[in-house]
Amino acid sequence: MFTGVLHTIQSPEDLRALSPKQLEQLPAELRRFIIDIVAVKEGHLGASLGVIELTIALHYIFKTPEDRLIWDVGHQAYGHKILTGRRDSFETNRRLDGLSGFPKRSESKYDAFGVGHSSTSISAALGMALSAQIDGNDERQHIAVIGDASIASGMAFEGLNHAGVTDANLLIILNDNAIGIDPSVGALKRYLTNVKEGTAREENIFEALNFNYFGPVDGHDLPKLLEILATLRKIKGPKFLHVITTKGKGLAQAEANQVQYHAPGKFNATTGELNPKHSVNLPPKYQDVFGHTIVELARANRSIIGITPAMPTGSSLKYMMEEFPDRALDVGIAEQHAVTLAAGMAAEDKIVFCNIYSTFLQRAYDQIIHDVALQNLPVIFCLDRAGLVGQDGATHHGAFDLAYLNCIPNLIIYAPSDAIGLRNIMYTSQLGLNHPIAIRYPRGRGHILDWQLPFRPIPIGKGKCIKAGGTIAIISIGTVLQNAIEASIAFGDQVGIYDIGFLKPLDTNLLDEIFDHYEAIITIEDGTILGGLGSSVGDYAFAKAFKGTIKKLGIPDKFIEHGTTEELYELAGISSRAISENLKILLQ
Amino acid sequence: MFTGVLHTIQSPEDLRALSPKQLEQLPAELRRFIIDIVAVKEGHLGASLGVIELTIALHYIFKTPEDRLIWDVGHQAYGHKILTGRRDSFETNRRLDGLSGFPKRSESKYDAFGVGHSSTSISAALGMALSAQIDGNDERQHIAVIGDASIASGMAFEGLNHAGVTDANLLIILNDNAIGIDPSVGALKRYLTNVKEGTAREENIFEALNFNYFGPVDGHDLPKLLEILATLRKIKGPKFLHVITTKGKGLAQAEANQVQYHAPGKFNATTGELNPKHSVNLPPKYQDVFGHTIVELARANRSIIGITPAMPTGSSLKYMMEEFPDRALDVGIAEQHAVTLAAGMAAEDKIVFCNIYSTFLQRAYDQIIHDVALQNLPVIFCLDRAGLVGQDGATHHGAFDLAYLNCIPNLIIYAPSDAIGLRNIMYTSQLGLNHPIAIRYPRGRGHILDWQLPFRPIPIGKGKCIKAGGTIAIISIGTVLQNAIEASIAFGDQVGIYDIGFLKPLDTNLLDEIFDHYEAIITIEDGTILGGLGSSVGDYAFAKAFKGTIKKLGIPDKFIEHGTTEELYELAGISSRAISENLKILLQ
Repeated sequence: MFTGVLHTIQSPEDLRALSPKQLEQLPAELRRFIIDIVAVKEGHLGASLGVIELTIALHYIFKTPEDRLIWDVGHQAYGHKILTGRRDSFETNRRLDGLSGFPKRSESKYDAFGVGHSSTSISAALGMALSAQIDGNDERQHIAVIGDASIASGMAFEGLNHAGVTDANLLIILNDNAIGIDPSVGALKRYLTNVKEGTAREENIFEALNFNYFGPVDGHDLPKLLEILATLRKIKGPKFLHVITTKGKGLAQAEANQVQYHAPGKFNATTGELNPKHSVNLPPKYQDVFGHTIVELARANRSIIGITPAMPTGSSLKYMMEEFPDRALDVGIAEQHAVTLAAGMAAEDKIVFCNIYSTFLQRAYDQIIHDVALQNLPVIFCLDRAGLVGQDGATHHGAFDLAYLNCIPNLIIYAPSDAIGLRNIMYTSQLGLNHPIAIRYPRGRGHILDWQLPFRPIPIGKGKCIKAGGTIAIISIGTVLQNAIEASIAFGDQVGIYDIGFLKPLDTNLLDEIFDHYEAIITIEDGTILGGLGSSVGDYAFAKAFKGTIKKLGIPDKFIEHGTTEELYELAGISSRAISENLKILLQ
Repeated sequence: MFTGVLHTIQSPEDLRALSPKQLEQLPAELRRFIIDIVAVKEGHLGASLGVIELTIALHYIFKTPEDRLIWDVGHQAYGHKILTGRRDSFETNRRLDGLSGFPKRSESKYDAFGVGHSSTSISAALGMALSAQIDGNDERQHIAVIGDASIASGMAFEGLNHAGVTDANLLIILNDNAIGIDPSVGALKRYLTNVKEGTAREENIFEALNFNYFGPVDGHDLPKLLEILATLRKIKGPKFLHVITTKGKGLAQAEANQVQYHAPGKFNATTGELNPKHSVNLPPKYQDVFGHTIVELARANRSIIGITPAMPTGSSLKYMMEEFPDRALDVGIAEQHAVTLAAGMAAEDKIVFCNIYSTFLQRAYDQIIHDVALQNLPVIFCLDRAGLVGQDGATHHGAFDLAYLNCIPNLIIYAPSDAIGLRNIMYTSQLGLNHPIAIRYPRGRGHILDWQLPFRPIPIGKGKCIKAGGTIAIISIGTVLQNAIEASIAFGDQVGIYDIGFLKPLDTNLLDEIFDHYEAIITIEDGTILGGLGSSVGDYAFAKAFKGTIKKLGIPDKFIEHGTTEELYELAGISSRAISENLKILLQ
């Protein structure tokens, strides 16, 4: 049974009723609660442990939910969720129909704004603050809590630049722990270090942007935080509080290994030790196929450059950063810059692999069109986490890339169906394509153990017949091919399977053959059903007056929430079971 | 005949051979040359006049094209073009098959990087500088010239943040004239004013980001510029030069009316007076339909807010800014921030019209998906300059919006076919749709004089039959409907015409009727043929097993260059002539 105070808190109102002594014991209890559940259920750990005192202090001093509190990115908001009525449901975190791993408006009135991608909090909070001002409400406060990695992103600067010339009731709290998922980089990070060490000169960069600057303060000193927040709550206009915290605070291993304990998987809640990995005989993660292959290629080709915006670990570009530090760059959370930097390098004949998660490439859409494709610069985009990513949910699915890239001229778009395909298209791309290429592949592991075979070039724009059939052709793009193969087994020779590979250029010769030989076609993709492979095959079918049936499977026109990848494939209707159902209907 | 020195300059090599006395007379000649041609041929004026001395000094001191020179945005690069071998072809500026209005790699080796959208120059120049460094070339210099409006955009900050921790040979020149197209806004602009006036405190914001800062210097003092650039050329690593200029310098009217003379149209080259406008009896520009309608709506509805990222004049939001300054906001070149600010306001029940040019909304693609659509916040996006924009060319066409928006769940997408449609959908949207909506409309004028009729709501998701026909149905979206009507006249009752209006939700009832009654369908849109109306109609046609012919007309899968809108419609195959040709073929 609980003996402490955490179990008495149903809402921040209960928190505000605690005595100073009770308040004092809350951080340890809250940490323990998070550690015990995340150790078993998995999730983001280090970020939430780092803001326990800040979370308590914010809800204690500010009148949430009337005062608006926005957590940038939001993976640090577990404490916030637990203190705002979601303690008992917290064990459902990141599970299908359970709590989201991020703040979400539809989940709680305390989640003032949904988050997931970084650096949105200042803009959203300012929008709310200006709304209050327009309504003549000068009491309500609006707080954005943003990390030092996120605040260095361009969007955050745009928000600061606007906020600084308003007199809106906005409090920006910089949660400075010198790390995002990987350690922070860039000139602003260096500057913040100077500020912390007292070596920055007189004028402060945030004061230069017209903010009332406070700090730096120790973010684990709860009384101090309560005191300064109480002061700030009474000050009108834009304010900036610089708080220094330690990611993973309170769990020794998490403090010592901040990258690993960002989202550590299962671990021992008592000792903090990570559960042993059983990965020896598993096929590799796609990210590692990328990470090891680029190193192999870079050894042989001095023109190869790797770029990641803040995901050296997640993309596995870290292997190249270790071996070729001058040619593998982490540019911070700066997708726009990453893409145009790559374009500038490609203009100087560098062979640039720019690795960005599919969902984050949305941040650099204009740069792909305007700086890369329009100039036909042969940048090689590697889009990790394409398709449905599982537990991170709606904010993080790489659902849109096939559709938003398909309309861009000059661009080659390829989705390998396995690790060998990813490896070989990377090899092919660095041979020189005279066009930019987007290579998209999913989160997680493939199914091939023996993937490091000698390189073989992939003919651009050529699909493959996996298996000829009699009546129905399945045309697949990407790793969802495995679902198609699985589904087709029961139907024997009736079903042909084609791995189209390239969304652009489309293999029209192969499609001509398919149109000639089959009565019906199923297209399957782990991207939005609108604008991707199904639409392209349909467009070509009309151009060629194909009179058969085409059934298009893909992610339907709605946002898909969180759950296991398998559950979400089922929900989206692209599981092998769903394909099988469609085959049955077509064969009736 | 020319009597000066400009006509002797075929390349920067010739420039570098001039005597100091000859150099002294060049600015006046270059200004005169630009004024004489732009007065007749039209184009951007003020920005190029403001950097004449800087342009000469840069090409004089730096060894272009070996040293890389990138002009941010590029509408200030007329002097650059004239001095780099394009003097005699400059009169073809912005015409079909003539010079581009912006630097362009395929046009000249002196155009190191193609530009058009703002704030790309730092990233591109840094990419080139890092490439030189990797190659062991520490001689080559890389210069980005960027205005004070552009440097306040998030992407530029991302570039600065990265550049500051490198030791790449990068020179950033801030061309500070306190204006973009409209006067600059924001905290950074305010700060730069303090720097110029000497009231900023000790540490400089650019020094805080680890740049070697020089300036501010008078950008019209050629000897001074030559001197400081000669010094800077010898300094390794990242450098920052702050130059103060006057937009429109050398033409009194252009200096006095900087917004109007940004792109003044035709004017008297001697007196500077603008040619008289004959617009009294012309139908209004779509931007003015937006600008006047939002004022009308805002008078009746206090919850209405208007947001523009740096286009108060171009969007005509300026009318609302004059009448309701607290509720109409120019946030600067900050599309990402603009969209999430709008989302924050919509979360507080404000009715937000967020007006962004179609091509610039590409900068905020992630924010539309992640901050607006995912939370289903009913922001009203008004996308001006959708479709083919004419002389600004490939960087500025609003070609992709229908495709990149179509795959986003929860979003309503509407393109009015005339000014009354724009007016009424704005009225309808502020009544409350419970969904975000994107309304896209073109540059230029409509065809309706009497457009300010009483408001009428538009039923969401309902298309209109303009004219029933016998054999072929044309399904049109947006103002290209006029081309369809024009083309159909010669074919009498054979051709039916449908104004679908909504790309999403698609009027499937209307499509069912069309599939029942017609043998063939032509879809027509002024957006990319991939992923827009044609694809959506095709998708639905397969779902309903329509066995007729569908011919899809739209912008083909290539970048369209500059020219008159009429020329470009013809090139893209969406002119009335092109529609007519397709009707003939289908009726054979």
